[in-house]
Amino acid sequence: MDKDRVTVLISCQDQKGIIANVSNWFYERGLNILHCQQYASKDESPIFFMRIEADMSESKLDKAEIEEQFRVFASNLKLSYKLFYASVKQRLAILVSKTSHCLYELLSRYEENDLICDIAMIIGNHDSLSDVAKKFNIPFYYMPIINGEKEKQEERIIKLLQENNIDLVVLARYMQILTPTFINAFRNRIINIHHGFLPAFQGANPYKQAYERGVKMIGATAHYASEDLDQGPIIEQDVVRVNHEQGPSLLKDMGKDVEKRTLLSAVRAHIEHRVIVYKNKTVVFSKES
Amino acid sequence: MDKDRVTVLISCQDQKGIIANVSNWFYERGLNILHCQQYASKDESPIFFMRIEADMSESKLDKAEIEEQFRVFASNLKLSYKLFYASVKQRLAILVSKTSHCLYELLSRYEENDLICDIAMIIGNHDSLSDVAKKFNIPFYYMPIINGEKEKQEERIIKLLQENNIDLVVLARYMQILTPTFINAFRNRIINIHHGFLPAFQGANPYKQAYERGVKMIGATAHYASEDLDQGPIIEQDVVRVNHEQGPSLLKDMGKDVEKRTLLSAVRAHIEHRVIVYKNKTVVFSKES
Amino acid sequence: MDKDRVTVLISCQDQKGIIANVSNWFYERGLNILHCQQYASKDESPIFFMRIEADMSESKLDKAEIEEQFRVFASNLKLSYKLFYASVKQRLAILVSKTSHCLYELLSRYEENDLICDIAMIIGNHDSLSDVAKKFNIPFYYMPIINGEKEKQEERIIKLLQENNIDLVVLARYMQILTPTFINAFRNRIINIHHGFLPAFQGANPYKQAYERGVKMIGATAHYASEDLDQGPIIEQDVVRVNHEQGPSLLKDMGKDVEKRTLLSAVRAHIEHRVIVYKNKTVVFSKES
Amino acid sequence: MDKDRVTVLISCQDQKGIIANVSNWFYERGLNILHCQQYASKDESPIFFMRIEADMSESKLDKAEIEEQFRVFASNLKLSYKLFYASVKQRLAILVSKTSHCLYELLSRYEENDLICDIAMIIGNHDSLSDVAKKFNIPFYYMPIINGEKEKQEERIIKLLQENNIDLVVLARYMQILTPTFINAFRNRIINIHHGFLPAFQGANPYKQAYERGVKMIGATAHYASEDLDQGPIIEQDVVRVNHEQGPSLLKDMGKDVEKRTLLSAVRAHIEHRVIVYKNKTVVFSKES
Repeated sequence: MDKDRVTVLISCQDQKGIIANVSNWFYERGLNILHCQQYASKDESPIFFMRIEADMSESKLDKAEIEEQFRVFASNLKLSYKLFYASVKQRLAILVSKTSHCLYELLSRYEENDLICDIAMIIGNHDSLSDVAKKFNIPFYYMPIINGEKEKQEERIIKLLQENNIDLVVLARYMQILTPTFINAFRNRIINIHHGFLPAFQGANPYKQAYERGVKMIGATAHYASEDLDQGPIIEQDVVRVNHEQGPSLLKDMGKDVEKRTLLSAVRAHIEHRVIVYKNKTVVFSKES
Repeated sequence: MDKDRVTVLISCQDQKGIIANVSNWFYERGLNILHCQQYASKDESPIFFMRIEADMSESKLDKAEIEEQFRVFASNLKLSYKLFYASVKQRLAILVSKTSHCLYELLSRYEENDLICDIAMIIGNHDSLSDVAKKFNIPFYYMPIINGEKEKQEERIIKLLQENNIDLVVLARYMQILTPTFINAFRNRIINIHHGFLPAFQGANPYKQAYERGVKMIGATAHYASEDLDQGPIIEQDVVRVNHEQGPSLLKDMGKDVEKRTLLSAVRAHIEHRVIVYKNKTVVFSKES
Repeated sequence: MDKDRVTVLISCQDQKGIIANVSNWFYERGLNILHCQQYASKDESPIFFMRIEADMSESKLDKAEIEEQFRVFASNLKLSYKLFYASVKQRLAILVSKTSHCLYELLSRYEENDLICDIAMIIGNHDSLSDVAKKFNIPFYYMPIINGEKEKQEERIIKLLQENNIDLVVLARYMQILTPTFINAFRNRIINIHHGFLPAFQGANPYKQAYERGVKMIGATAHYASEDLDQGPIIEQDVVRVNHEQGPSLLKDMGKDVEKRTLLSAVRAHIEHRVIVYKNKTVVFSKES
Repeated sequence: MDKDRVTVLISCQDQKGIIANVSNWFYERGLNILHCQQYASKDESPIFFMRIEADMSESKLDKAEIEEQFRVFASNLKLSYKLFYASVKQRLAILVSKTSHCLYELLSRYEENDLICDIAMIIGNHDSLSDVAKKFNIPFYYMPIINGEKEKQEERIIKLLQENNIDLVVLARYMQILTPTFINAFRNRIINIHHGFLPAFQGANPYKQAYERGVKMIGATAHYASEDLDQGPIIEQDVVRVNHEQGPSLLKDMGKDVEKRTLLSAVRAHIEHRVIVYKNKTVVFSKES
């Protein structure tokens, strides 16, 4: 059943009749709309966003025809769009360093069929987590930064990602700042987890800073990586209530829980094609089924 | 600006092209869609729901023409619908007994223009809260049950409500079970707040029961009143985390907070025309602006 | 029953036997401990905190004797402490500007006996909210800043507060930065509500900033006022989940809800003597009863 | 450092001077109190509970002396108590059926040193999850119910648990009702996860029932198993907000998330010796560090 499903993400300048136009286009082609969500931004010059899931099984068009006809339609209405088939899973690469909690979260969900994608590989700038990869039968690539030559390491990684047709890169506590070259190669297709509720404590050891400041909540932010560190479009944020009883080390443990569930939630939203990026922020449509 | 706004709530058997059909109808009449939300239920024979907010200011039709043409359109497609103008506020009656926390919540929000409606009257089966009504300049009607003749009291209340064109009755801890006659007169237009997270502890003193049972959360449920006590369509539920430290009296205090915010949220959803009832449950569309 | 209750808040360098010493002191004097909470900070040189609620009704000592004997005991062990009788309510002054939502929250809770204190006065630098004060029968003092002479205005306010034996000053969206003179006169006795989750967006219109940044949660922080704006000890923080659908004005409305409940919670913690300040942060003991 | 740590859980009829008595006992023996929490129930005849973590490294007594002296002390004051050394980890057996989400949660936390105990074995009445056990190098015992002879199967399980000195049995969606014999053999040492927020929908397929009823939140409850199904002492409960968009299958997925984190939290509380059971409910002390 899923194999006949197509999801289209649309954005354009808001215009009269846009919902009617788009829904007609599907209707006339026998593409039955299963879910439809739309939104117009609150900006002075509003942008319109739409997510449509449709069933192709009763259409007389094949995929190539659908794609071509939509291309023409979108061109006429000046729509930006992406089109995804449910039968084609997103291919993920997970980048890690030495910390395992986010990796375990992603892999155990994946193993339980609770994260519908292909995790094609795990890449580490350290070798520490190769055993975890092995446990879950995922290829692990050890890609150290040699002699401080980070750009060369990134070149090797980008090559590997491209050769493997990776759709989404997940930084699961990767702890390295990516160069603009990397960012550009996977614009809005790299998800990072930030160990703080943005705007957040800057610099090293944020949980110690949180303890020193005596905050009553700690949080995490999952966002697309951008050139400006921690300034990319936010996909998901979450917090947990804390109090004076929790010292820096317990705060860190609690923070790990928030980090992993926030990252998971953001990755799910992306691979389910529920996210549209605009103006350095996101529209995240709710999940339905 | 609001004066030109119309909201239409639609439900029907799900059918192909329904989104296109409805959005076309608005487009062709120069009714610019501002917000549009839709949903198809997960039942074997799915029901389709839609909420449209549109701007009438550029349409050549007047309200009467819009209403008549939509009536015909809906009849053809077998749509159930309700149509509301933003310029016409919902008229509320609040029924109370002796407890003031929900009443205060509603009245102070009202006073702050944070609850957009007309609170036309407060009706008490006790006189205890007439001072609160006076403080906020709302007419208070003391309607005691005399000689246990509840039906007579209800008759007087229903008459008062109807004479005053009340749209929505809010039971703000009214503590009386309404007869089917009352329920029928205001079907899906009476909101009750239940001091429990349904399914819940039955009978008297639920907070004591909660303490005895040692629950770790207490909750409240706002729902439309139905003949079956506490079995009407749920509009909103909320909980608060508790632990062993809270005895029955503190649980009750904490419960009051949950009750009032849950009731407020349900009343807002109703008066903003975001609720559609079906099969003893509700579709509650999210708030946008 | 409450009239015989005394609460003591203690802090000192952590030391062996401190719990035994303090609890013995109460036991030997027939002061029955009803609640007892303690905590040692996670600092290198830990600080010990204790909150004791005791029943004096079976003690042979009168209040003066209790106070004198505890003074000597505390001096020997180098304890800092504060001692409060449940029979003596905290006296509050609420400072406001033009915005009413926090004021309404405090006053309606007060009216419902859900905020146990004496709200002695409301002071406004604008006259806008005098009607609200009148509604709840609280004296309102209009204290404008004349010719930009803020220090003179503050002098008048401080004089008024001191003449009326005010214990706690609540800045309910007062919108004025207090001078160090004011801060010092009521050190750790001025509670402010900050319309952001600290660390937060700085400067004007934080909700617009939040919208522009596309955050997925907005928050509020209640803290004691200090010379450094928004840098005082945090008492309570809370957040609410938002998404792309909420524009700046709805974010502001939702923010008001968070602000009022966060401020209320902080004021309650203070007047129930559950807060101890140290190192620019707070220990907030949980509520029991 | 942990090796010198002892935790004592105490309960008794509330009595004057109890905090002083107990804390003195530790002080006099050079057992330095690191954390101390206490609570008196709100019952007519209150019960007193206390949790003490102490450092033994500066005491002149060895473990045997400490145990013997505390035994005498407790006997004099009529205290019930349990005493645990941090150096001795709790030994767990996890019972499963065919569903893996709770098992994965426990095992991946365990693997990350985020669940401090010994998971000695996994027992399945089906063989389905033996691979998961293997992945994490935990012995798996396949213990089917043969010819419907459940008591014989339980005998084999109980024997296995006792031979392996199992302290805690975790029912990770085991889907079998235990006999009173099993319950009694591990009274208050069997934790079950109930897929509902108690009081809850009874019977099969609660998520379908939840969808039919149109609830706005779903929850889970972790509790000690008792003879009355789902009526044992509650340790932890949690909920997640849902709306009309989620059909039975998505509700079930969301429920899995709540189930696993609720179970994890309860297991942590137990193995950290933060739970005391009384009157079919629990005192769960908060975590500190």
